[in-house]
Amino acid sequence: MFIQAAAGRFFAGRLDTDADLLAALDNFCMAHEIYQAHLQVIGMVKEARIGFFNPKRGAYDTTYLDREFEILACPGNVSTMEDRPMVHAHIMLGDERGQTVGGHLLSGTRVFNAEFFIQELNGGRLERRYDQHTRAAVWSAVR
Amino acid sequence: MFIQAAAGRFFAGRLDTDADLLAALDNFCMAHEIYQAHLQVIGMVKEARIGFFNPKRGAYDTTYLDREFEILACPGNVSTMEDRPMVHAHIMLGDERGQTVGGHLLSGTRVFNAEFFIQELNGGRLERRYDQHTRAAVWSAVR
Amino acid sequence: MFIQAAAGRFFAGRLDTDADLLAALDNFCMAHEIYQAHLQVIGMVKEARIGFFNPKRGAYDTTYLDREFEILACPGNVSTMEDRPMVHAHIMLGDERGQTVGGHLLSGTRVFNAEFFIQELNGGRLERRYDQHTRAAVWSAVR
Repeated sequence: MFIQAAAGRFFAGRLDTDADLLAALDNFCMAHEIYQAHLQVIGMVKEARIGFFNPKRGAYDTTYLDREFEILACPGNVSTMEDRPMVHAHIMLGDERGQTVGGHLLSGTRVFNAEFFIQELNGGRLERRYDQHTRAAVWSAVR
Repeated sequence: MFIQAAAGRFFAGRLDTDADLLAALDNFCMAHEIYQAHLQVIGMVKEARIGFFNPKRGAYDTTYLDREFEILACPGNVSTMEDRPMVHAHIMLGDERGQTVGGHLLSGTRVFNAEFFIQELNGGRLERRYDQHTRAAVWSAVR
Repeated sequence: MFIQAAAGRFFAGRLDTDADLLAALDNFCMAHEIYQAHLQVIGMVKEARIGFFNPKRGAYDTTYLDREFEILACPGNVSTMEDRPMVHAHIMLGDERGQTVGGHLLSGTRVFNAEFFIQELNGGRLERRYDQHTRAAVWSAVR
């Protein structure tokens, strides 16, 4: 299941301190009508909330981390779900000794400083839909 | 040692549940004649096999991980080795508490869900060849 | 605060064994007049020096790691500071058991083998300037 696309617009910028990282990325994509993209973020967070998809429950086990971390990497993508852009990203965090923690990026991760790159794709369409087999919202349609 | 290229085709999609992650990426590149690219994957695996290049042996020390993990990041590239596309990727994994583990992506890493982006490069050619100094198959030719 | 750009040149290559990873990336960007880009590196280092930004001090707490690691990921960007290209990258490292450590990439990280991708952006300009609020050199201007 895939699409073949071409490079579209390229956005790069900084998110506001204290913004919710996931909501800020979602809002940026909605504001600029970015429906399909590849993204990456580096920077620092003031606190984080990460998830681990539990296939038995079909939901995320969540961990809240009440401290600052470097964002070591935050690769992700944008696709559509119910006709709206939806960001799916994973995040790796590092503390002052370099120790790492990471998971699925959840709302509740607050920005200290975040530099993002969003590479839009033109052509085809990836749509996220609920999949009974994996119990997750996966890319299941090309329209 | 480098090439200057331009953006080529952009592929994005989902790999099948239970596929071998590395083999699936290699096969995708062979099927679509992608000889040179940058790639990224996020998702989840059912089990993983990762490597650490041991320069003394000129081979990978391997670790097998018999459990599910989030794929926190899986950056990599495609170049040619003996005229075939060859994927080289590293992978970071996170468990339900957010604890992380990672290494060189080896065959034996099985997909639960995987969303990939492959950005093809046009122009120049990176070829992987055995290098006596590092005892690894490194980019050593531009043709 | 963001720019909208288009894909520019794409560079891919290998850095020399024993090179300083950050300096080699900075020098590559200066030599090729790359003022704005997104980058990724995978490979292996002989030793590493990583940082954690300490907002109270407005400086990096640093950790020196005197051993070899796989570079699991090293996402970053290029922007200008005082009219010169400046690389900002974060790095995740893995040892022979797959254990991970990571932080802000500092000078003193020595390459064993490193494969880089640099995607230039054309259009707009991100400039890094000292910001009193975060006490960091952040993207603060589009010119």
